[in-house]
Amino acid sequence: MIIVNTGNGKGKTTAAMGQIIRSLGRGWKVCLIQLFKGKEFYGEQKILKGLKGLDFYCYASKHPGCFPGVSKTSLVSDCGKALKQFEKALASKKYGLIVLEEFNIAVRDGLLKIEPLLELLKNKNSNINVLITGRSAHKKLLKIADCVTEMKEVKHHFHKGILAKKGLEF
Amino acid sequence: MIIVNTGNGKGKTTAAMGQIIRSLGRGWKVCLIQLFKGKEFYGEQKILKGLKGLDFYCYASKHPGCFPGVSKTSLVSDCGKALKQFEKALASKKYGLIVLEEFNIAVRDGLLKIEPLLELLKNKNSNINVLITGRSAHKKLLKIADCVTEMKEVKHHFHKGILAKKGLEF
Repeated sequence: MIIVNTGNGKGKTTAAMGQIIRSLGRGWKVCLIQLFKGKEFYGEQKILKGLKGLDFYCYASKHPGCFPGVSKTSLVSDCGKALKQFEKALASKKYGLIVLEEFNIAVRDGLLKIEPLLELLKNKNSNINVLITGRSAHKKLLKIADCVTEMKEVKHHFHKGILAKKGLEF
Repeated sequence: MIIVNTGNGKGKTTAAMGQIIRSLGRGWKVCLIQLFKGKEFYGEQKILKGLKGLDFYCYASKHPGCFPGVSKTSLVSDCGKALKQFEKALASKKYGLIVLEEFNIAVRDGLLKIEPLLELLKNKNSNINVLITGRSAHKKLLKIADCVTEMKEVKHHFHKGILAKKGLEF
């Protein structure tokens, strides 16, 4: 199964985290590959690190949206490593679920090409479920996905000038 | 903060579960009150039960959509108990996050009145964050919420005749 969480609303990452604990609860092994998220930054990461059955990788921790000085060359290289890690995870055949966090953003921003990602998805063993998150999912990815949810912002407190809050947004 | 996850797509419950582990990761105490979900049914519940800082309650485990024989009187009584538990959780002032799982469905199906729920939400301490899930959220709830996400189904494998899969959907 190929699952995509996209859209401009809150809930893409948290739904992926919930999916991970659901799968772990069934005794599946899970691989989480995160882009643009420092490994020590998000509240959920502290819990995830303590869970058995989860392998957890972070690449390209600094997205240019937040860190304008970061070099594109290093980001492309890091996203390439993340894709390589995905390839390895698929080949190991030990995971019931592999989560590719913010890969949609990497594709949107030209840091990762869509074709090699699609190739890996199309040729994967059908028992391996892959969940891909991030706004602006590529239409070719939507086409091959089995399940797509758009997390659509109806209302967000950010627009009232409330900043991201520790414990809620990170 | 009052947060609502609604819509017909996948991800409302899993996003709530992800929100819980994010908040726990920040050292918050969390209270989860679930409706229509047997405590031994969902994969994520096995993980949640092992996490420190989470108090976890289940009421009205059988929704008439899946169990047509269940009596409405007992469901109304159970949903009332769940609301009472919410009131207690608010009064204890020990939680940073309280999650009301599927309360939108209880309101939609006439098992819980919207007014007493709104009263509790309007009068709550502003430091307590409440996340309410379930499709068909009441418009009065949407009005007082700070953050609303519609998990919108773009594509779902159920429509290809694929049944809910252990580890993915429950």
